[in-house]
Amino acid sequence: MSLIVQKFGGSSVKDAEHVFNVAGIITDTYKAGNQVIVVVSAQGDTTDDLIAKAKEINPSPSKREMDMLLSTGEQISISLLAMAIEKLGFPVVSLTGWQVGMHTDSNYSAARIRKIEQERVQKELDKKNIVIVAGFQGINRYDDITTLGRGGSDTSAVALAAALHADLCEIYTDVDGVYTTDPRIVPNASKLEEITFDEMLELASLGANVLHNRSVEMGKKYNVNICVRSSLTKAPGTIVKEVVDMEKMLVRGVAKDSDVARISICGIADTPGKAFKIFSLLAKKNINVDIILQSIGRDNMKDISFTTPEDRLEEALQILEENKAVLDYQSLDYTKDVSKVSIVGAGMVSNPGVAAKMFEALYEAQINIHMIATSEIKVSVLIDAGCETKAVRAIHDKFELG
Amino acid sequence: MSLIVQKFGGSSVKDAEHVFNVAGIITDTYKAGNQVIVVVSAQGDTTDDLIAKAKEINPSPSKREMDMLLSTGEQISISLLAMAIEKLGFPVVSLTGWQVGMHTDSNYSAARIRKIEQERVQKELDKKNIVIVAGFQGINRYDDITTLGRGGSDTSAVALAAALHADLCEIYTDVDGVYTTDPRIVPNASKLEEITFDEMLELASLGANVLHNRSVEMGKKYNVNICVRSSLTKAPGTIVKEVVDMEKMLVRGVAKDSDVARISICGIADTPGKAFKIFSLLAKKNINVDIILQSIGRDNMKDISFTTPEDRLEEALQILEENKAVLDYQSLDYTKDVSKVSIVGAGMVSNPGVAAKMFEALYEAQINIHMIATSEIKVSVLIDAGCETKAVRAIHDKFELG
Repeated sequence: MSLIVQKFGGSSVKDAEHVFNVAGIITDTYKAGNQVIVVVSAQGDTTDDLIAKAKEINPSPSKREMDMLLSTGEQISISLLAMAIEKLGFPVVSLTGWQVGMHTDSNYSAARIRKIEQERVQKELDKKNIVIVAGFQGINRYDDITTLGRGGSDTSAVALAAALHADLCEIYTDVDGVYTTDPRIVPNASKLEEITFDEMLELASLGANVLHNRSVEMGKKYNVNICVRSSLTKAPGTIVKEVVDMEKMLVRGVAKDSDVARISICGIADTPGKAFKIFSLLAKKNINVDIILQSIGRDNMKDISFTTPEDRLEEALQILEENKAVLDYQSLDYTKDVSKVSIVGAGMVSNPGVAAKMFEALYEAQINIHMIATSEIKVSVLIDAGCETKAVRAIHDKFELG
Repeated sequence: MSLIVQKFGGSSVKDAEHVFNVAGIITDTYKAGNQVIVVVSAQGDTTDDLIAKAKEINPSPSKREMDMLLSTGEQISISLLAMAIEKLGFPVVSLTGWQVGMHTDSNYSAARIRKIEQERVQKELDKKNIVIVAGFQGINRYDDITTLGRGGSDTSAVALAAALHADLCEIYTDVDGVYTTDPRIVPNASKLEEITFDEMLELASLGANVLHNRSVEMGKKYNVNICVRSSLTKAPGTIVKEVVDMEKMLVRGVAKDSDVARISICGIADTPGKAFKIFSLLAKKNINVDIILQSIGRDNMKDISFTTPEDRLEEALQILEENKAVLDYQSLDYTKDVSKVSIVGAGMVSNPGVAAKMFEALYEAQINIHMIATSEIKVSVLIDAGCETKAVRAIHDKFELG
């Protein structure tokens, strides 16, 4: 008997038919003699609908009340999924974030999990119940409801798997695994059987849209075996784990991310501490900064450019403008018309020429590169928005990943 | 400074415009220097929509999961109302049933309040917050979500007013008070300034649709001053309290209830304990029984007739059929084609001839009476469905209540 955590996203439970499909997967796993904990997101467009309802009343509601509102989405789906499983004749119980004891910090709308109580879930498992848990939500020390932000349900699932020492954490999505690149763009993209946490981390944070990076970080930290698979096929999926057979493939995948905005802070005095000030101000507001590029100082002036998610652009600009005096720069420049394309592979670091090959592919496709960032296992470039599909295809072909 | 509890029903918060209307009433009360606790129901058709969603998946879901589902309705409205109050610039916090510590028994879908913790609400009041509480919901000893059933939000409000020793509990509805009868039927019905708990109890349970009887019982038990008033006008409403000036009016109001079914159990052996068995079986399933009429025994046989709400008819019949052997009766007869019309007034008991006057009015209107039940402060009759409006008008005129 294994303990398996299964996570289903909003599109997997978007209507009654899909709910029963998911209920079938869960009860098959249970029938095979396993203990099953299920984490589920809000149905289809529920979250968007709730946000629209809120914005009609208050364009900038407090995050506490927003979390109070949004957490109802998962509560609706856990109860409906439990009712479907009841209909199929299996013992089941649904639990909200607070009932599970999913304790988080108080950072409403982007809370981090601090601790998960095991008592209630364990008690329900001991009673032979299938346990359906609301993803994406928790409670803080004041007993107020928090949500975990984007990718929160994946994180809930992996965290539960870690806390209850599950044998496997299956993340069901609408794709059947992790591919060398998005198969909708490059039809001959190939599915990876296995991938390391580190590689997955780079792919996830680069917009591969399969697993959220927070969940992969959690998986890596607690060494949870994660399997990414489709709720619509029986295909085996991709296993994410600590070490995989490296084979000969240098580049594991090509990812694109169109949700990128670039900000340039121009004419900063070339004195120590500027970058620290800028990025700590942004960090305080939980604005993720990705590629950072600093020009070489000239005439005691330098420019710092960086990228953020598009929906944080305005907030980031506001922070920078409010602190213009402190940061002492001349002007701000920004654009949303950029995309990021990246290659990822744990073998890259020991193989020179990988980045050059990527740049060659882009040159051959006549795509201009605005920014470059590299790590041990990835190379990212910022290019004009609209070119990213062409870029992904060119790079995928160049590395013969098909 | 007074502590005021205000309750708003689903139609009062059905859309953004109504939410802001309610937010205006609340903040006006707060601005006048009062502490304000608000209890709110699910918006408009939310509960019906959720029930439809559930039935699509499982026609007979467990009540536990149904309560898990339905409780999201109030959670949505408390957060939206809080956002509206934030928009108006007032300090506010919304709280679910479990956050308030609204402890109930485990009778899912029709739970009774056992205890209300005061800590959290008091803490928020001390912080000068307007406190918005989800009506209709609580938690049981297992930390599972329960709902209070019909009229639950009224009961939540009165219970909170009792627990926190509020000076007044205002129940906002779409009518501006308690009338001598339904003004939609009898245009010259007059509004009562005051009414006793007992009279209100009779009117509520008789389908006057203003206040649910559970909330009035709670008000009577803890002596909470209740004010029934409209969220759409500034009219003063009707105060429900322990003792009112009796004036000369014998009959305070005429009420009708179309949600009535009659069951007759025919040919029961005329031995002791039969009625006990029947009604304890029904009570176990929480089926409310109203008028009970037992025929005089003849040939060692008797008939027992009683009324229930229409939506409990099938369940009641099923229980009686399952227990046919134990109850030892010959046949069941039932109909939904009946309505109940009643007159209520605390002065009735000491004034003979009130019932006769009512029967006279019905005779003059050529309405046949099927069953009669009386108490110290009311007389109810069961008549054919469809005649109730005519009956109410005739009685209202007879007693010159207009």
